Amino acid sequence: MNVFLIYDITHDQTRTKVADLCLDYGLDRIQYSAFEGKLKRTHQEELMLKIKKLLGKKQGDVRLIQICHDDWEKQLLIKNLAPAESKVVIEET
Amino acid sequence: MNVFLIYDITHDQTRTKVADLCLDYGLDRIQYSAFEGKLKRTHQEELMLKIKKLLGKKQGDVRLIQICHDDWEKQLLIKNLAPAESKVVIEET
Repeated sequence: MNVFLIYDITHDQTRTKVADLCLDYGLDRIQYSAFEGKLKRTHQEELMLKIKKLLGKKQGDVRLIQICHDDWEKQLLIKNLAPAESKVVIEET
Repeated sequence: MNVFLIYDITHDQTRTKVADLCLDYGLDRIQYSAFEGKLKRTHQEELMLKIKKLLGKKQGDVRLIQICHDDWEKQLLIKNLAPAESKVVIEET
C-alpha cells in the first residue's frame, strides 16, 4: 500500500531520529518533512507507535496517509530542481 | 474530494504566496508546509497551475494528492500540542 508520511517536529534531534526511522522502514524522502513508500497496514501502525515513543511529550504533528492506487496515479506534481539543473516538470504521475 | 497539499519551497516570499493561495482555495493549514481540505478535480488542477506560475523557475517541490474516503478515514495521526496544552493524541481518524 502506498503511503505518505509528513511531520512537523520542533525538536531537531527527534526530527532526525524520526527521519532515520522512516528510512529504516524503506520510505523515500521526497521533501524536507515528507516521505513516501510502500507499507503494509501492520507496519504503518508499528512505525507510528515507534514515532510516538520517540516523540514522547515533545511537540509534534505526524500523519501517515495510505493512498489507493487510483489516487496515487492522480497525484499532481510540480518539481523545479535547483537552478543548476533548471528542470521544470508538471505532470500527472 | 479530500486532498493533501505539501510543498518544499526555498524562496520565502514565494512560499508565503503559495500558502495564501492554498488558504484562498479553502484549504486548512495542518503543518508548516502542509494543507488539507476538499477540492474538486478542476480546482485541484487550477490551483496547481497557479502555484506553478507563482513558482516560475524557482526551486520547489509541490504535491497535491487526492484521498478517497476510505483512506482518509484510515489516516494515522500523532498530535502533541505545545507543552502548555500538553495534550497527546494518537488516533485513527
